[in-house]
Amino acid sequence: MGLKKKPVTGMKDILPAEMEIRDYVLNQIKETYRSFGFSAIETPCVEHIENLLSKQGGDNEKLIFKVLKRGEKLDLASAETENDLADSGLRYDLTLPLSRYYANHAASLPSPFKALQIGSVWRADRPQKGRFRQFMQCDIDILGDATNQAEIELILATTTALSRICPNNGFEVRINDRQILKAMALSSGFAEDEIEKVFIAADKMDKIGEDGVKAELVEYGCSDNAADKYLELMKKTSETSEGVRQMGELLAGFLPEQAAENLAEIMDAVKEAAGNVRLIFDPTLVRGMGYYTGTIFEVAMEGLGVSVAGGGRYDKMIGKFTGMDTPACGFSIGFERIVTILLEGGCKVAGEKVKEAWLYEKGLPAQRLAGIMKEAMDRRAEGRVILVAQMNKNKKFQKEQLSKDGYQEFKEFYKEELKR
Amino acid sequence: MGLKKKPVTGMKDILPAEMEIRDYVLNQIKETYRSFGFSAIETPCVEHIENLLSKQGGDNEKLIFKVLKRGEKLDLASAETENDLADSGLRYDLTLPLSRYYANHAASLPSPFKALQIGSVWRADRPQKGRFRQFMQCDIDILGDATNQAEIELILATTTALSRICPNNGFEVRINDRQILKAMALSSGFAEDEIEKVFIAADKMDKIGEDGVKAELVEYGCSDNAADKYLELMKKTSETSEGVRQMGELLAGFLPEQAAENLAEIMDAVKEAAGNVRLIFDPTLVRGMGYYTGTIFEVAMEGLGVSVAGGGRYDKMIGKFTGMDTPACGFSIGFERIVTILLEGGCKVAGEKVKEAWLYEKGLPAQRLAGIMKEAMDRRAEGRVILVAQMNKNKKFQKEQLSKDGYQEFKEFYKEELKR
Repeated sequence: MGLKKKPVTGMKDILPAEMEIRDYVLNQIKETYRSFGFSAIETPCVEHIENLLSKQGGDNEKLIFKVLKRGEKLDLASAETENDLADSGLRYDLTLPLSRYYANHAASLPSPFKALQIGSVWRADRPQKGRFRQFMQCDIDILGDATNQAEIELILATTTALSRICPNNGFEVRINDRQILKAMALSSGFAEDEIEKVFIAADKMDKIGEDGVKAELVEYGCSDNAADKYLELMKKTSETSEGVRQMGELLAGFLPEQAAENLAEIMDAVKEAAGNVRLIFDPTLVRGMGYYTGTIFEVAMEGLGVSVAGGGRYDKMIGKFTGMDTPACGFSIGFERIVTILLEGGCKVAGEKVKEAWLYEKGLPAQRLAGIMKEAMDRRAEGRVILVAQMNKNKKFQKEQLSKDGYQEFKEFYKEELKR
Repeated sequence: MGLKKKPVTGMKDILPAEMEIRDYVLNQIKETYRSFGFSAIETPCVEHIENLLSKQGGDNEKLIFKVLKRGEKLDLASAETENDLADSGLRYDLTLPLSRYYANHAASLPSPFKALQIGSVWRADRPQKGRFRQFMQCDIDILGDATNQAEIELILATTTALSRICPNNGFEVRINDRQILKAMALSSGFAEDEIEKVFIAADKMDKIGEDGVKAELVEYGCSDNAADKYLELMKKTSETSEGVRQMGELLAGFLPEQAAENLAEIMDAVKEAAGNVRLIFDPTLVRGMGYYTGTIFEVAMEGLGVSVAGGGRYDKMIGKFTGMDTPACGFSIGFERIVTILLEGGCKVAGEKVKEAWLYEKGLPAQRLAGIMKEAMDRRAEGRVILVAQMNKNKKFQKEQLSKDGYQEFKEFYKEELKR
């Protein structure tokens, strides 16, 4: 029987050139976070179906690859729905497994716990260009730290990692707080139960502009006046902590007392510790996920305008699983997006090793070849990358292919010395 | 709803201490193979069910985690067997996906192609101590090279990787050839159709000893004389290529002409290029898998006696999928076994970085804390690992826990300088 040569629908084989870039990015991320005291962890790719369907994943729960029960547990005759057939599934994100992991192991983990989790996740999304059904996620979380030290560390570590990956590009961190967003709405005259809608409209600023946002707000039944006031507050972007403190004064009576100062401190500390990070208080930043409770942030690569990392504080999520609230703050790096940017040459990779190909003529005496192998071993021990390969009949084509694979230096060995 | 805290049956969460060892082993493997010109590749964890059930996996095909069809494709009402419900499954090894990958991409890969594939595989085995249903495999294969250069490179690269992982342990490579095993049986008087059984009996030498093997051979209906002659040949272990050449002479007429010389050359070349590798021609080495066609080899860690890597030549396998035979030779490193040895202290890990924990008293002024963060950033840029964390009330317990996590140096920061 012939085998199916293509990968399953929506998933991809990764060729050597892309693997080099993926490994390079992974190494930079791991080394950086490790230097900040983050600990790598791993959870199985397969998760209990009950956990996956526990309403923590939003729409992702519709996209689960479910795993069939095995042996006697699979009772096809009496199965009525597909959920009778599956006892587990492939994880659709790393946050749910992290919550389970923390609930399971908190007693043997340091507090606060700084976790780095890198792994594949699966979503049975409609296949489309550049989006795959198996992809890598890369999450950093600090669990058990209620102070803004968590935010400061996450921003410093993430911008350090991104700067190591793309040393020639600048990065821009936009920061906000869900509490400020809420106070902005309340102080503008919106009611408590309108806030959710206000966030959804405000989140579209990038796409539909000020007029569009205003139109949506008015459509929700808000007064013209409230909408204008809210839009006015959204303009108070600032690159200094002073701007945040002023916003705090404007929102006095609507904002918890320490909230603005908390954010201002984060800005000051990041600037003090990392002078090269461009940090912007941005009252238009909302971020989609419903579970954020405080600070939110997003990192964009300058010049490209796309977000390459984002996250925030979500103090109420772990409690839903463990029954006890645990302060939590996290960042997710857009691993696949960064790989795409590197593949398309959007940023230069630093420090590639020179790769040499040593080609030998067919029929070279075994002893001479052994000598060549020995020399290659010595050079590799010095840190060089050396491929030893038999010369093909079409040497020119062979070298072209090797060049495509990144080999820049060639050495040739012939039976007769004269040919060299 | 409460979440299930334990991982799914038979799979495990990996704690930080084990992750450090896993990452260390992975890095050594990747760097070493890369220096030999191997290219990392990746295939999806999910594979077509038709491929997984194509009889290349032996008993592993009974242990597949099958993935449920989705949407309209899942027709529960008309499904008669479980295979009507699944369109894919989790891979049970990396060799089958490698064959599919090579069939799919050969045109854009160099020839010969030197592949390094590291990834998780899944087998729904009966859960037992130390064996898990998700585990890591690490395979190195050279595809498209019919010469013994492939074997030489694989042995050199693998022993180099193992020596880097455990620099203080010796390694022993045992090597044989399926053709020699076959010729040994034929020259002893066994018939062609008895060879399979002879291999199975010979493979048990470790466990049941010479008498046991002889008893099994005689039980199969072999003559006492044939069994004795075969057992005599099995004793011709040798640490020099001369021993292999002598075996070739003993088997003249039964062994293809170049076979012994081919193996002798491998031994000479490996010794020339890597003087520290102990290489033993071992006529008792069989290795279980049926697909080997030529050289076979196994690496053991000296002192522990367990095999940590094994492999061989399998020139007929890829042809079963592509319709065109492709010479192939590969090594599989026992990744999980090596991690276990390291976890149990069986070999010392080299070059661990010193980890420092900087603890600050609660309530330290924000500006002072920012200065500490800045200093930590500078030290990290120099390559140090520094955790900055708030001091817990029970500082002693906190430090004990951090020590367990590998932090050896501590620095403390107080509000009042005097307390230091």
